[in-house]
Amino acid sequence: MDEEILFSLLEKKNIKELRPILVAMNPADIAQFLSEVKEEELPLIFRLLPKDLAAETFVEMDSDMQEMLITGFSDRELKLIIDELFLDDTVDIIEEMPANVVRRILNQSDPATRTAINEILKYPEDSAGSIMTIEYVNLKKDMTVKEAFARIRATGVDKETIYTCYVTDENRYLLGMVTVKTMLLNDYETKIGDIMETNVIYIDTLTDKEEVANQFNKYNFLAMPVVDKECRLVGIITIDDALDVITEEATEDISKIAAVIPNDKPYLKTSIWRIWLSRAPWLLILMLSATVTGIIITKYESALAVSITLTACIPMLTGTGGNAGSQASATVIRGIALGEIEFSDIFKVIWKEIRVSVLLGITLAVACFGKLMAVDQLFRVENGYFIAAVICITMAVTVAIAKFVGAILPLIAKKCKLDPAVVASPFISTIVDALSLMVYCNIAIAILSPLGAM
Amino acid sequence: MDEEILFSLLEKKNIKELRPILVAMNPADIAQFLSEVKEEELPLIFRLLPKDLAAETFVEMDSDMQEMLITGFSDRELKLIIDELFLDDTVDIIEEMPANVVRRILNQSDPATRTAINEILKYPEDSAGSIMTIEYVNLKKDMTVKEAFARIRATGVDKETIYTCYVTDENRYLLGMVTVKTMLLNDYETKIGDIMETNVIYIDTLTDKEEVANQFNKYNFLAMPVVDKECRLVGIITIDDALDVITEEATEDISKIAAVIPNDKPYLKTSIWRIWLSRAPWLLILMLSATVTGIIITKYESALAVSITLTACIPMLTGTGGNAGSQASATVIRGIALGEIEFSDIFKVIWKEIRVSVLLGITLAVACFGKLMAVDQLFRVENGYFIAAVICITMAVTVAIAKFVGAILPLIAKKCKLDPAVVASPFISTIVDALSLMVYCNIAIAILSPLGAM
Repeated sequence: MDEEILFSLLEKKNIKELRPILVAMNPADIAQFLSEVKEEELPLIFRLLPKDLAAETFVEMDSDMQEMLITGFSDRELKLIIDELFLDDTVDIIEEMPANVVRRILNQSDPATRTAINEILKYPEDSAGSIMTIEYVNLKKDMTVKEAFARIRATGVDKETIYTCYVTDENRYLLGMVTVKTMLLNDYETKIGDIMETNVIYIDTLTDKEEVANQFNKYNFLAMPVVDKECRLVGIITIDDALDVITEEATEDISKIAAVIPNDKPYLKTSIWRIWLSRAPWLLILMLSATVTGIIITKYESALAVSITLTACIPMLTGTGGNAGSQASATVIRGIALGEIEFSDIFKVIWKEIRVSVLLGITLAVACFGKLMAVDQLFRVENGYFIAAVICITMAVTVAIAKFVGAILPLIAKKCKLDPAVVASPFISTIVDALSLMVYCNIAIAILSPLGAM
Repeated sequence: MDEEILFSLLEKKNIKELRPILVAMNPADIAQFLSEVKEEELPLIFRLLPKDLAAETFVEMDSDMQEMLITGFSDRELKLIIDELFLDDTVDIIEEMPANVVRRILNQSDPATRTAINEILKYPEDSAGSIMTIEYVNLKKDMTVKEAFARIRATGVDKETIYTCYVTDENRYLLGMVTVKTMLLNDYETKIGDIMETNVIYIDTLTDKEEVANQFNKYNFLAMPVVDKECRLVGIITIDDALDVITEEATEDISKIAAVIPNDKPYLKTSIWRIWLSRAPWLLILMLSATVTGIIITKYESALAVSITLTACIPMLTGTGGNAGSQASATVIRGIALGEIEFSDIFKVIWKEIRVSVLLGITLAVACFGKLMAVDQLFRVENGYFIAAVICITMAVTVAIAKFVGAILPLIAKKCKLDPAVVASPFISTIVDALSLMVYCNIAIAILSPLGAM
């Protein structure tokens, strides 16, 4: 609705009416509107925004649009925007930009900011250090609430959050934290040292950001402090960053479980070449690894030749194996991601999966037997009950293999410091396919050849 | 580390030393510790906690433990805990409890709380109304910052958040919102009406909670107001609730994509019967739907009999089809969940997938041809090049079918108000398997029968 009005004003070049509507909008909505206007109109509209709103809107844009705007900016315009940005946002932007744009951004930052940016860029990708910001409110323990509020008034406008404040000593060693809520609920003359929480839960700079997100999920904090090896406060991470991490990590895990190489761009904005690149490698690897199943089928040609039903059931067996395996692996992969399952739980997991496999194996074998009698009418075929037995036994064994492989592979991957989602899911169906086909053919030989059927 | 000390103190029944350590801990950590102690020790340790900490810890426990504790509580104890709880937490707890426990909880709540709980319970599951809380700070526009702070001091301790305050008129109509940050950065005498944000982004009580989470992701607010049909403020949702929703919804979508019926308990705490129940239905449905592929194979027996290589390639074709389909469906399902893709984008999606399919089809067909020559040595076989052509053409067509079905099925499901993840992913491989096998056999007949090979 709103957007239609904006577009019609834009078409009429009615800047005078467009501007106040735009200025009253939320930065995220402005960014969305800007993503829909024509490329040549983008800088024009962006320049209508006052600088603080312009900076907030800039942060919400995708990196292609940011790059386009920066390229069009004069140095002075670029500096105005950068000065308004929070440091962690600047770092996020820099990480997506080509080298020449990065150089321009760094040149337009003041020396202190530049040093800070370079510090943060030094932390490993995906570490807490790489997503933190240094713009937090720092209090001293002998301040009163009133003095603390005065400090917040003086410096708070540039802080990522003012609601959680940190108390440090002269060596930046973290002594405690205090929330604005606690301060507001206490008398103005109360000393910060008396109301601060000293049992502070903190994050190490090198902690993986997925673990950081889990900490936010567990503790429901609005912000958490990040400390270096000597336990000195170096920055904070706020809950909105944790929200982004949780969303991104979930998207990544879903991609990996579906054998897609993750890609942080929205689908509709990704070029077909990038989509091809993110999909082709796993499809190729998985296709070629199916060579193994092909070899097994060729080798056991004579066993399968006993009845076309044996061949006809191959997709059902490999399909069920793949489904059973991915049920177990997806559950375990998600459990690992949320910190609910660790490698040390491996025997608990195996024990659980063994019992579940027995239940599922019986369920599926019985259903499968019913299907073979009702649909394939094996009772009319010579040796039909034996053929059905081969298929049903294989079904139960396949489920057990699939559950076992599906559940332990992610845990082993994690133990080997590999990504559980990448290593585990795409390979599981290949491994399970091969194993179950071998089981199938061998059971067929064991049961059918004494009967003289082959 | 800490836990070991706690356990050793517990073993020695050294309550005197245990208590202060426990009291200094974060509620989430206490809950975790309690989940590891023996059942009979649980009430004993829980009673060591002061009532506010006890309530906060109670919220962090899983529902089995909550139920166990409530059963052991006297009415007075139960009332003490309930009085300390935030309303949305009480509702969360009630939703997991059996009827008799719910009745006890409601009996121990004061009448106003009971009415409010019943109001919230009336909202549909998964709606914004069902996850909101009514404990927000309500300001009037002619208050000064100082008066607002006084009000927060007086009432803030029981509010879910004090950092975002809402301004309403006498009919509870939402006029604006103001953050504590804005108030702190303005003079104490400033009128709230002059600094409040009037362009408030709000949520309708009936909005789906997944959409609510997306709004938080988009706007980075700490809280959002929830309004009824008449735009009157009825509650708020805070970012920590959004965080929970995002995590839960991602877990649910991963489960559904992996053909598991979602279950909100952590894997290690789920009984094998519940795991069986969450996995068996889809495995059965998918196994039985593979009947179709079996029928196709049986029907085209003579075409497949031309060469064992044709049969041997079935798992490779169906496997690649399944993988290609789930790549597309997982991407689209996630895009829908994040609000990036809508039904109206269906033609954009189809056009993208067609082009990607061409690229992937060529890539895979070429690789497949190489594999058939190198591994299966089809060049030595009579009509080998033609057999290879059948397989490679089918491979390309299968990828195209899989991408098409995988991409549009979730969108159609969404349009029909069905869950994209449930409807789409498990069925895709079945549909693709059946279609690609039919294509396979028909191409085989078209190419090979003129050669007199069948």
